[in-house]
Amino acid sequence: MNRRVAVIGAGPSGLAQLRAFQSAASNGAEIPEIVCFEKQANWGGLWNYTWRTGLDQYGEPVHGSMYRYLWSNGPKEGLEFADYSFEEHFGKQIASYPPRAVLFDYIEGRVNKAGVRDWIRFENVVRLVEWNPDTRKFTVTVQDLPNDHCYSEEFDNVVVASGHFSTPNVPEFPGFDRFNGRILHAHDFRDAREFAGKDILLIGTSYSAEDIGSQCWKYGAKSITNCYRTKPMGFDWPDNWEEKPLLEKVHINTATFRDGSTKHIDTIILCTGYKHHFPFLPDDLRLRTANRLATADLYKGVAYVHNPALFYIGMQDQWFTFNMFDAQAWWARDVMLGRIGLPASKDEMIADVEARVAAEDAGKDDYDAIRYQGEYVKELIAETDYPSFDVDGANEAFFEWKKHKKKNIMEFRNNSYRSVITGTMAPPHHTPWKDALDDSLEAYLGTEATPAAAE
Amino acid sequence: MNRRVAVIGAGPSGLAQLRAFQSAASNGAEIPEIVCFEKQANWGGLWNYTWRTGLDQYGEPVHGSMYRYLWSNGPKEGLEFADYSFEEHFGKQIASYPPRAVLFDYIEGRVNKAGVRDWIRFENVVRLVEWNPDTRKFTVTVQDLPNDHCYSEEFDNVVVASGHFSTPNVPEFPGFDRFNGRILHAHDFRDAREFAGKDILLIGTSYSAEDIGSQCWKYGAKSITNCYRTKPMGFDWPDNWEEKPLLEKVHINTATFRDGSTKHIDTIILCTGYKHHFPFLPDDLRLRTANRLATADLYKGVAYVHNPALFYIGMQDQWFTFNMFDAQAWWARDVMLGRIGLPASKDEMIADVEARVAAEDAGKDDYDAIRYQGEYVKELIAETDYPSFDVDGANEAFFEWKKHKKKNIMEFRNNSYRSVITGTMAPPHHTPWKDALDDSLEAYLGTEATPAAAE
Ligand SMILES: Cc1cc2nc3c(=O)[nH]c(=O)nc-3n(C[C@H](O)[C@H](O)[C@H](O)COP(=O)(O)OP(=O)(O)OC[C@H]3O[C@@H](n4cnc5c(N)ncnc54)[C@H](O)[C@@H]3O)c2cc1C
Ligand SMILES: Cc1cc2nc3c(=O)[nH]c(=O)nc-3n(C[C@H](O)[C@H](O)[C@H](O)COP(=O)(O)OP(=O)(O)OC[C@H]3O[C@@H](n4cnc5c(N)ncnc54)[C@H](O)[C@@H]3O)c2cc1C
Ligand SMILES: NC(=O)c1ccc[n+]([C@@H]2O[C@H](COP(=O)([O-])OP(=O)(O)OC[C@H]3O[C@@H](n4cnc5c(N)ncnc54)[C@H](OP(=O)(O)O)[C@@H]3O)[C@@H](O)[C@H]2O)c1
Ligand SMILES: NC(=O)c1ccc[n+]([C@@H]2O[C@H](COP(=O)([O-])OP(=O)(O)OC[C@H]3O[C@@H](n4cnc5c(N)ncnc54)[C@H](OP(=O)(O)O)[C@@H]3O)[C@@H](O)[C@H]2O)c1
Repeated sequence: MNRRVAVIGAGPSGLAQLRAFQSAASNGAEIPEIVCFEKQANWGGLWNYTWRTGLDQYGEPVHGSMYRYLWSNGPKEGLEFADYSFEEHFGKQIASYPPRAVLFDYIEGRVNKAGVRDWIRFENVVRLVEWNPDTRKFTVTVQDLPNDHCYSEEFDNVVVASGHFSTPNVPEFPGFDRFNGRILHAHDFRDAREFAGKDILLIGTSYSAEDIGSQCWKYGAKSITNCYRTKPMGFDWPDNWEEKPLLEKVHINTATFRDGSTKHIDTIILCTGYKHHFPFLPDDLRLRTANRLATADLYKGVAYVHNPALFYIGMQDQWFTFNMFDAQAWWARDVMLGRIGLPASKDEMIADVEARVAAEDAGKDDYDAIRYQGEYVKELIAETDYPSFDVDGANEAFFEWKKHKKKNIMEFRNNSYRSVITGTMAPPHHTPWKDALDDSLEAYLGTEATPAAAE
Repeated sequence: MNRRVAVIGAGPSGLAQLRAFQSAASNGAEIPEIVCFEKQANWGGLWNYTWRTGLDQYGEPVHGSMYRYLWSNGPKEGLEFADYSFEEHFGKQIASYPPRAVLFDYIEGRVNKAGVRDWIRFENVVRLVEWNPDTRKFTVTVQDLPNDHCYSEEFDNVVVASGHFSTPNVPEFPGFDRFNGRILHAHDFRDAREFAGKDILLIGTSYSAEDIGSQCWKYGAKSITNCYRTKPMGFDWPDNWEEKPLLEKVHINTATFRDGSTKHIDTIILCTGYKHHFPFLPDDLRLRTANRLATADLYKGVAYVHNPALFYIGMQDQWFTFNMFDAQAWWARDVMLGRIGLPASKDEMIADVEARVAAEDAGKDDYDAIRYQGEYVKELIAETDYPSFDVDGANEAFFEWKKHKKKNIMEFRNNSYRSVITGTMAPPHHTPWKDALDDSLEAYLGTEATPAAAE
């Protein structure tokens, strides 16, 4: 087979695609040549931590949005790989909310075992993808960053796995150009200790606001204020945390909110979400979608309806993550291997998208949304040889998690859940989250708290 | 004439190119169609201040490297337009070191008068330029940001005026990934007040280090430390400012320098310069040069030797700025209009570049460098109808400036110089720089200090 597949990105989604093909090959299938282009120097996507912000050593936008001391915000029992359990990787069951470094190690373990690192061209950024209707091939133009060299190659299929939580959505509020302090987006947040003793204003009410605020609280901010456009988060916050209606304006160091109240503020952190951003895709190939569970224009959430030789992995908003990317990657692989056929007409594919949108819209709360995405994962898994697992059990872990957060937002990470892959209950962690200041892998996997390094 | 010219960027260099063509047209010449692509929403390049850092509202790298309270770091008498004096613009002579807003107003005045705004497509970012040897035309691929639309057009000439002080050079030092404070590049520095009461470490010894350190000092930093790779700046610094050998490593909040000394540090600002960065240019068109006075590969510092249908404006390191960009733009215009012929062979053009490099290398100090760049400006002006001016007089202003800095680094901006365009002496400013906390145009042009806004 002389076919060639380009995979853009070696984060969890791109790695799922590599592992899917490697798994088919190890079962005796003939597979296309796979070339994965990754702009960073290592794999892991967002999980590959960097201290850098803004532009990197090559002048490229920094991909990383993760920060120090980040722990999983959902139970690991919701994201476990069906073909590679936590117990297989760590040789034992571990607690349910691992810090970033632990999850990075786990992600890496599976692909090290699969032996796919050689398929990846690191520090190669995709600049442009073009479709040639005559040859029915894609031309992919790439910049080799360390060698400062630009080149093009042809591919039969392209899989876009470049993520969608790296290009910040950065609204402006009146007075920002004269505010006397730092204004940053969550994307550029790195070390909570920098904000110790400060009055912090967070804009937004989703995961970034909740988690960055919690970190700043944990590492000694003087006060946390967050403000909402739609509705407050409504958790039972610590005493120095207050929720306000949306910011109206800032003047020097004073924030004024829509209810007319004011507050002294040192730093503003925009936790206002991210954009699907594909500067390397022309109009005919570029996905334009809101951040939702049923994305626009993707048949089965994966194949681009306007050109189904092009696939997108992981473009949905995410309750399920790693195992959903796997389900998508196995499915896309089977289309590329000719094992799964696509509908003959574009209309049929569009009807599939519309049905998914309607089904998502019919849900009334987060519980329905979790069930909806769980059903989607089941649907894809049923069509491939990805190991099936107890998705309903994973849903249950998510439901429990939501209740634990509601009960105590600063203590939910002290809970444990049962693996749906191995059936083992997670042990409790040795230290409550709020007292565990060292987020290293060694500290987490050890048996007792290590004192955090501090001057 | 059906020819078309693309100008990339509407900063001082791109605007010089527009003004050069408009000047020819107003003198009766037939000129090509000019299309200027500018990624920002307004003109002025670096002088167009933004509070944004990192990525902008469209997910594009923020171009701006300027910060609040920035005043010209050289006397305005060195950069005055020969065809549009400060007196013409402001109706009077003004003091010698204007803040950013005043210089922005001046830059804008000339191009408003010329009426070239309609030639510019704002919020249109150039993604790719390709040369077609068959048609001898360039294809320019552009993203219209507000309309999220990608399109291509053909041009006979391309003028790259995208600046080279926007893509930061960001080296890493041991310990950066675990430093407990903010690490930023000068490119992301915005408001010095944010650093009041802090111990600041600056890496680098050039203009950014000098000026950002001075600002932090002026607005209340606790201490300034700067460290050098080559040699210290050697000014007579205030008591809370210290120069150290290069940083060796950081650990938590302690910096260790090459001489083994250590210091407590809250914030690290990398004043380590910028990269010539052209992500929109393929290998055959991309300038690769160090930041120096005699750039690589540019005949007369302007025409790209490997394809002289392509021009670069403002790519040199800069003593002279606005009037040098003018000299280059008028010269490039005259090549495009067929008034100036290029050497028949590439070898001749390469010999020109080599001679320039050798002449620069023969200089022994900054005074020679200023003279060298002054000669270059004179050389270009002599070949076009750009109004000639007393370049040697401008050199003298630079020499004086260097002496004033040496005498007192925190007071050099209180001096005045004589205009080489109108012959008028600049008046003294109403307030010493260190006490002038309000950097607005109104405050600068008024007759007395206005109290700076503060909470
Ligand atoms: C702050 C934060 C915290 C999160 N925490 C959790 C969590 O606790 N649990 C969880 O399950 N999920 C979490 N997520 C969700 C996260 O989206 C997924 O876990 C996962 O990283 C998505 O994988 P991905 O491969 O789709 O995208 P990414 O991880 O973003 O990887 C995309 C890759 O593509 C590369 N790339 C991009 N553009 C190009 C290009 N032009 N050329 C070449 N390479 C390119 C990037 O460098 C990157 O390596 C979090 C997200 C954020 C932002
Ligand atoms: C912090 C700082 C302070 C300075 N202070 C002074 C000073 O006091 N005095 C002085 O004379 N000089 C100063 N300079 C030097 C400065 O380089 C010049 O004054 C001048 O701004 C250079 O003009 P330019 O047009 O070449 O580049 P820029 O001003 O950088 O303008 C380039 C333009 O190109 C646009 N652009 C870039 N890429 C694209 C693209 N792909 N598509 C479309 N548009 C694009 C940008 O948005 C920008 O508008 C300073 C520089 C810095 C960094
Ligand atoms: N592991 C962790 O702990 C962790 C931490 C952070 C993030 N994450 C992950 O990162 C991803 C992104 O989460 P996110 O919170 O950054 O983004 P998000 O979920 O898309 O939420 C965006 C938030 O910004 C608000 N917003 C957007 N534009 C606004 C505007 N113009 N004015 C005011 N508010 C505005 C939205 O308000 P409305 O509700 O009004 O629309 C919403 O609250 C998620 O997958 C999340 O799980 C994980
Ligand atoms: N109006 C204003 O007041 C103002 C303010 C700031 C900047 N500017 C302008 O902005 C432009 C850029 O100035 P700049 O100072 O940012 O850049 P620059 O002049 O290029 O200087 C770069 C500095 O970084 C150092 N450096 C580079 N890499 C390093 C590394 N790996 N380790 C240690 N040191 C390293 C260099 O040291 P070596 O000497 O050892 O090479 C040099 O001191 C200039 O045109 C300047 O006029 C103007």
